[in-house]
Amino acid sequence: MSYNPDNVFAKILRGELPCFKIYEDEHSLAFMDIMPQAAGHALVIPKFAAETLAELPLQFAAPLLTTVQKVMAVQKQVLAVQGVVLMQLNGAEAGQTVPHLHFHLIPAHLSKLKAHGAEQGDMAQIKALAERLAAALQ
Amino acid sequence: MSYNPDNVFAKILRGELPCFKIYEDEHSLAFMDIMPQAAGHALVIPKFAAETLAELPLQFAAPLLTTVQKVMAVQKQVLAVQGVVLMQLNGAEAGQTVPHLHFHLIPAHLSKLKAHGAEQGDMAQIKALAERLAAALQ
Repeated sequence: MSYNPDNVFAKILRGELPCFKIYEDEHSLAFMDIMPQAAGHALVIPKFAAETLAELPLQFAAPLLTTVQKVMAVQKQVLAVQGVVLMQLNGAEAGQTVPHLHFHLIPAHLSKLKAHGAEQGDMAQIKALAERLAAALQ
Repeated sequence: MSYNPDNVFAKILRGELPCFKIYEDEHSLAFMDIMPQAAGHALVIPKFAAETLAELPLQFAAPLLTTVQKVMAVQKQVLAVQGVVLMQLNGAEAGQTVPHLHFHLIPAHLSKLKAHGAEQGDMAQIKALAERLAAALQ
């Protein structure tokens, strides 16, 4: 599998495209999914050119887990929910649409999720939630 | 959240219940989901009493990623698929049914998955696939 550096998330990492950022550190970036499967749907991505989990170096495991735990905690707090679905699609054949490794964190029940990558959400609402999540992460 | 040591996966870890094991090391166990959402559906769990990802200590991140990568690789090989869905449900409110942290690895397209935790599969077929996956992991 060869990584394509022109994918949307690579462009976000390089600052060539905007995102509703909620958290960033040396190894990872967290931002809102603009096609949310539920309110508060966030993405966590590594600052490393991996298409799927198969290509992620082990030294990214703990930093990514740390970011995922942080984002999940504020999702529960800000959205006032108890459950979060983590989903991560490996390969177009699994349904992956952007070929840069990403973890979906969706604060809702699995049975209530909208379809993956199907419909753009209300951008004003997504921006407002991003601001609340980012503030809670400060 | 208080961990309940009487859950099914804790019993599997203690050897009190059987499973179709495909891999085991110091930090993790991989075995078949007996309610598969697609053929070859496997689970990876930590040897640690965590109910959700929120309680997982960081030192388990790299060992679990290693096991997930190993299992995904043999799923692709044995099932002859290119895509694997990783899903991990945090809390009953997300749809989690067994309160011990587990990563679902489902070698299929997201849109083709059967419902989660809905129906027991063909046990002979699951056992046969477990043996092929375990053999490929040797």
